[in-house]
Amino acid sequence: MASIEQFEDHCWKDVMPAADMMLYSCYARKTYVGPRPALLAIDLYNIVYRGGPHSPYQLDPIYPNSCGHFAHRAIEPTKRLFAAARGAAIPIFYCTQETRPNNRPAGAVSTRRQGFAVPRENDDYDIYQEFTPQTTDIVIRKQRASVFNGTPLVSHLTTLGVNSLIVCGESTSGCVRASCVDAYSTGFHVSLVEECTFDRAELVHKVNLFDLHHKYVDVMHVDEVIEHLDGIANAPRAAVAQRSENPESVSG
Amino acid sequence: MASIEQFEDHCWKDVMPAADMMLYSCYARKTYVGPRPALLAIDLYNIVYRGGPHSPYQLDPIYPNSCGHFAHRAIEPTKRLFAAARGAAIPIFYCTQETRPNNRPAGAVSTRRQGFAVPRENDDYDIYQEFTPQTTDIVIRKQRASVFNGTPLVSHLTTLGVNSLIVCGESTSGCVRASCVDAYSTGFHVSLVEECTFDRAELVHKVNLFDLHHKYVDVMHVDEVIEHLDGIANAPRAAVAQRSENPESVSG
Amino acid sequence: MASIEQFEDHCWKDVMPAADMMLYSCYARKTYVGPRPALLAIDLYNIVYRGGPHSPYQLDPIYPNSCGHFAHRAIEPTKRLFAAARGAAIPIFYCTQETRPNNRPAGAVSTRRQGFAVPRENDDYDIYQEFTPQTTDIVIRKQRASVFNGTPLVSHLTTLGVNSLIVCGESTSGCVRASCVDAYSTGFHVSLVEECTFDRAELVHKVNLFDLHHKYVDVMHVDEVIEHLDGIANAPRAAVAQRSENPESVSG
Amino acid sequence: MASIEQFEDHCWKDVMPAADMMLYSCYARKTYVGPRPALLAIDLYNIVYRGGPHSPYQLDPIYPNSCGHFAHRAIEPTKRLFAAARGAAIPIFYCTQETRPNNRPAGAVSTRRQGFAVPRENDDYDIYQEFTPQTTDIVIRKQRASVFNGTPLVSHLTTLGVNSLIVCGESTSGCVRASCVDAYSTGFHVSLVEECTFDRAELVHKVNLFDLHHKYVDVMHVDEVIEHLDGIANAPRAAVAQRSENPESVSG
Repeated sequence: MASIEQFEDHCWKDVMPAADMMLYSCYARKTYVGPRPALLAIDLYNIVYRGGPHSPYQLDPIYPNSCGHFAHRAIEPTKRLFAAARGAAIPIFYCTQETRPNNRPAGAVSTRRQGFAVPRENDDYDIYQEFTPQTTDIVIRKQRASVFNGTPLVSHLTTLGVNSLIVCGESTSGCVRASCVDAYSTGFHVSLVEECTFDRAELVHKVNLFDLHHKYVDVMHVDEVIEHLDGIANAPRAAVAQRSENPESVSG
Repeated sequence: MASIEQFEDHCWKDVMPAADMMLYSCYARKTYVGPRPALLAIDLYNIVYRGGPHSPYQLDPIYPNSCGHFAHRAIEPTKRLFAAARGAAIPIFYCTQETRPNNRPAGAVSTRRQGFAVPRENDDYDIYQEFTPQTTDIVIRKQRASVFNGTPLVSHLTTLGVNSLIVCGESTSGCVRASCVDAYSTGFHVSLVEECTFDRAELVHKVNLFDLHHKYVDVMHVDEVIEHLDGIANAPRAAVAQRSENPESVSG
Repeated sequence: MASIEQFEDHCWKDVMPAADMMLYSCYARKTYVGPRPALLAIDLYNIVYRGGPHSPYQLDPIYPNSCGHFAHRAIEPTKRLFAAARGAAIPIFYCTQETRPNNRPAGAVSTRRQGFAVPRENDDYDIYQEFTPQTTDIVIRKQRASVFNGTPLVSHLTTLGVNSLIVCGESTSGCVRASCVDAYSTGFHVSLVEECTFDRAELVHKVNLFDLHHKYVDVMHVDEVIEHLDGIANAPRAAVAQRSENPESVSG
Repeated sequence: MASIEQFEDHCWKDVMPAADMMLYSCYARKTYVGPRPALLAIDLYNIVYRGGPHSPYQLDPIYPNSCGHFAHRAIEPTKRLFAAARGAAIPIFYCTQETRPNNRPAGAVSTRRQGFAVPRENDDYDIYQEFTPQTTDIVIRKQRASVFNGTPLVSHLTTLGVNSLIVCGESTSGCVRASCVDAYSTGFHVSLVEECTFDRAELVHKVNLFDLHHKYVDVMHVDEVIEHLDGIANAPRAAVAQRSENPESVSG
């Protein structure tokens, strides 16, 4: 939780004009983690870590999807975030690209990025080794920017009684932005963790965080979110009461 | 295409009371295949063919999902339907259950059917051998009754410029009904092929076909639909103009 | 709540063949009202009560949408259901047709019913006088059979922290069926109240209730549901904790 | 249509770093208006024109939603765009806020903007007088940023056989961005008209146009789009073949 006075204590301060900050003062409010949260980790797949902690400008010719040092500097805070979420026993969702054969027609893709000169590898869209999903986690396969578009995510969240989301991952200007707008517009309170969110370029990262924070989500610092999750972990009982029904068949 | 006089020439005649037929006369109309069609084959997976062409009443203890002779008698007309669709070069969609690990939480299933005493097999939800998908076909993996629920199907149909659907498969009272209602309600004209649609029990099959025909779709005979598809096949150019764009990346 | 032994104690007993009942025994289970419920009253508008408590067969020529005595015999139990829901202070949702000018193109309608010979009245789609919405109730305007299709209902339910639905209204084979399948498939537990649900014809009413009960929802008797709601009303605190946020603007 | 060499000839040139432009060169492509288009005019309501053609910085204390001179300088090109769309006889969609009583619970709003000190007027969300909808136009009432969220827009577009959108309106960083991402992700080709799109602040306007152009839509100049529409107007027959069915009832 952060007070209304701390509402603009974020990374966009050095790029947003003072007059624009004034214009956006109507959005100032306390920020917080909502009730019955789940963690949603967006597109933490191998291809964005390729080439190591270097500038995406340098990596681009060989690793055209890499977020380089922006991805790598988010690893430690993201590991801490995952540990706190597991400690609090909240549901954990990942998403990544759908890569199975026969999964879509030509043109049904996330963005209008044009074809690659660089060959793709089989594990490009596997979750990065530092964040390997566990047995009870859910991995959503998506074809578009938003993890809500054309996926069963909403029905999963409703099934589990989830009412709010803690979001991290990439890219801020692509899948994170699209997913956060959809999450808010579907009725979820969203806390987006600044230190665990990244992109390939700084200006779009900062302006998109600015837009998201004012219009749709609570951009929060990782320490604030972890403190909240530790509070859940230490509370008498879990904050999310998952439904206990008899096992039902997947078949129709 | 069938005339308004032929509107009730279907399998439900022997179960619907005459007074109800009169009450539903306000739905009578000509039936037809709509413009820019795609074929949608619902849940033609192995588990519904298990045990061979016998009564589901007999097969139930060992093959509790089998549609038995209802499934098997639909094989030949469905093969003819597929052949005509391929001849007309229209897009072909299948759907089946999502079976990948980590794909959903407990409780997010198609129906409230309770757990099985009978062990499942790995190929239960593979498409039946008579209808094996080809390279350019799309296979939608779903978790709920409707192929539209939590899947990218709408975006695929829009991407391909599809405006209507030809539907077959099972079960009439489950996934076919739910999918047809969603298709109509999303704006597609739907032709449901009677001889290629089946269920485990006759009364629910007939009443659901009746409901669908009057309220949402054109239940048509397989010969009518094949005649229309042959007309497309023999027309100067394909009725569905797929978009030709440069290949774009799946990555965000 | 009803025990597994009472699972088939419903109105469809006289129309379903014994062999089919056996085939559907795999769906038997206890039924109940789910956690954090809301009431959803489907299409309780004037046009279905027109002409009074007579047979729809007789009313059809003059009041082609009337459910006649089926609608009128549901009035008293539905009033009791509403009173219990208001006593329990759960959220209450209605739906009705969208009738505003410029709201849709030709063809975007609920069903394929053909044009009327009988003139329409301005209050056809107003909620019937016995169930007039109160200030805090929500009225969803829809264009299709399902109240979930093309409406903000899911975002409202998520905003309010609702996890299950108590459903009543009409028609069983049309808007109730479509809405219940969508509700279940979006992750909500659904209790459909038998005495408060109706249609124009009995066979489709009973078979659709049968399908819904086995595959998607708990069809329950009104006394069972009212007993549950009275339990919420008498509990120390409300079962649905609505979010308390500062008032936020509707404008973007 | 604009060539790949003209791909970056847009308003963001003065704010995007050269290194970022290089990083985004993988998105360069020809731009165009797609097949079977409709016009979608986003949130052209009175409240954004209040106070006249002055800086939003100055207008903010009295007209906190006004886009001031950014809104007013878009009026003439938007009138030209509408005239060309009407000349081409393509479907025209508007959207605005849903303002009817009982339409939503507290908290289900477009953005997290906090409550106003300034009183609201009854015609705040009426379409601005220069763009008054005509009888055959559709006006979508929405509650969230995206015109696709919780509305029947997709079903309308499918019903009409629309495959692509020409988009204008405001705000670039809010409802336009959210709507364009959804349109693309639902499978529509989108042409966003630069001169007819606006916001309250320049940096967010430009960065959001940049993001949209590279990842999701073709940002095009109004003259290019009008030239294309004039081509449709002068073609032998309309490019959008609307379905001709019998009138069907709105009732279920």
